[in-house]
Amino acid sequence: MTSQPFHGVLVPVLTPFTRSGDPDAERLVSFCRWLLDQGAGGLSIFGTTSEANSMSGAERMALLDRLVEAGIPAQKLMPGTGACSATEAATLARHAVEHGCGGVLMLPPFYYKGVSDDGIFAFISSVIDKVASAALRIYLYHIPPVAQVGYSLDVVGCLINAYPDTVVGLKDSSGDWSNTAALLERYPDFAVFPGSEVFLLDGLRKGAAGCITASGNVNVPGIRKVYENWQGPQADALQAEITTLRKMLQAYPMVPALKRIVAHFHNDPDWATVRPPMLPLDEAQSAALLADLAKLGFTLGERPRSMAA
Amino acid sequence: MTSQPFHGVLVPVLTPFTRSGDPDAERLVSFCRWLLDQGAGGLSIFGTTSEANSMSGAERMALLDRLVEAGIPAQKLMPGTGACSATEAATLARHAVEHGCGGVLMLPPFYYKGVSDDGIFAFISSVIDKVASAALRIYLYHIPPVAQVGYSLDVVGCLINAYPDTVVGLKDSSGDWSNTAALLERYPDFAVFPGSEVFLLDGLRKGAAGCITASGNVNVPGIRKVYENWQGPQADALQAEITTLRKMLQAYPMVPALKRIVAHFHNDPDWATVRPPMLPLDEAQSAALLADLAKLGFTLGERPRSMAA
Repeated sequence: MTSQPFHGVLVPVLTPFTRSGDPDAERLVSFCRWLLDQGAGGLSIFGTTSEANSMSGAERMALLDRLVEAGIPAQKLMPGTGACSATEAATLARHAVEHGCGGVLMLPPFYYKGVSDDGIFAFISSVIDKVASAALRIYLYHIPPVAQVGYSLDVVGCLINAYPDTVVGLKDSSGDWSNTAALLERYPDFAVFPGSEVFLLDGLRKGAAGCITASGNVNVPGIRKVYENWQGPQADALQAEITTLRKMLQAYPMVPALKRIVAHFHNDPDWATVRPPMLPLDEAQSAALLADLAKLGFTLGERPRSMAA
Repeated sequence: MTSQPFHGVLVPVLTPFTRSGDPDAERLVSFCRWLLDQGAGGLSIFGTTSEANSMSGAERMALLDRLVEAGIPAQKLMPGTGACSATEAATLARHAVEHGCGGVLMLPPFYYKGVSDDGIFAFISSVIDKVASAALRIYLYHIPPVAQVGYSLDVVGCLINAYPDTVVGLKDSSGDWSNTAALLERYPDFAVFPGSEVFLLDGLRKGAAGCITASGNVNVPGIRKVYENWQGPQADALQAEITTLRKMLQAYPMVPALKRIVAHFHNDPDWATVRPPMLPLDEAQSAALLADLAKLGFTLGERPRSMAA
């Protein structure tokens, strides 16, 4: 088993778009810097929350080039490199490895449904063969509510056995605690990250490496408190606090809501731009969201210097 | 309403791969020529049956380049150009338009689930804007059993109204006859193709333009008989014949089964190669399939000269 490059609160970073819909690399650089300054343990750029699948491979690679060039430490980056085709996934993963990224987050091939475990295994195996690098670290991305196709407990075990130095962890966005718990029990040296901070404390108590969570985009400090104090007397109270915020957020379409929050607190309306098929919150939803946040006394805190216009 | 470039039996063409898994352009050229010789009304290369989503955009574009270069008439081609991102979909569609393809088959963005009709509309609208060509003809690809995301009757109407010269037809692979019938009733000038020949006769009786069907890869002549004789006294008997073959095929994983049939009848074992996450039929499945075909007296007929090694 290889050493684990990631732990703590990882953020699937929102991707800012310009008003005309192009990826905004400079805003992304600033936002990534701000998340790391706030204590993010790593940045899962190009995840579901990042609208990665609403970008072409070329757009994703250009953003990664710019982040590294701008000095965001590649070891802190875990770009999503999943795709429906093994050739595309391998191209994205090789590009990440060449930049020295700490790892990659790998969706299963998600177009065809009713795919067998053997088919999933063959796909990941094919990607690993094509990348052909000992530096590759794959975190499996299990998100059946969206991708529909997932990694079963068994196929995870087969992949760990076949590629112990390459397949090193998993983000579990199933929303099913019993699956996360089973992964932690069966594969103790494997880095399991619940896909929501709702399961952070329960996860840490069973050996989770942290969590990778959408709401990290607006609440790294709160979630980190749980990560840092999980063995202390305040752990349950701190967990209850972050769970309350998360459950409130879940009443809204998550990505448009998070972007609306950043736009509001950073006084930067363009941040609310999403790419189709997502749509921004309408005025009524925006007002309700901001009212809900106010009730919880939520604020994003000071806009960091690096994000100033 | 624009004139309709496609009618009859369209085939979502199987993509041959070499034993090592690369797209085999020369075999594809021969196979396309053979399908047209057999009377295919058009070739929906890069559909679900083509394992298009198991190829990168670059691989798909290279194959299309080669087909056109080899003299396959571009007007007969309806390449699948759908993708999860509008940028990728637009790149593929523009490439098809530049080659003079008769149309493109467009999946909705299929990663995010629970997407609104407004989001689907905004996505297609964005692709049309990016391609920016009066020559673009889009056939919507409705296949909710696989893509999960589909085109509702309402969003189809909105797209036709907004882009009457561009959004000109739809392949309905819902497997739900009531949806196909509703499309035919509501949008009489729109080219509706059931996604299975099981619905061909019923479709033609209500004004369908033909069908686009996986089994066309091995049965253009049989399916054409229904298309040509749908108003004749033998129509129901001819339909029953092709329905029997189709239902038999559906007992197997469709793409591996079709490839196995081509491999067998063309005495070319490499044709059975599929890309992960699909897997080839195992020996027992292959034997059962060939036995089932023999029972129906099925044969692919003579291997055409253009497919000789």
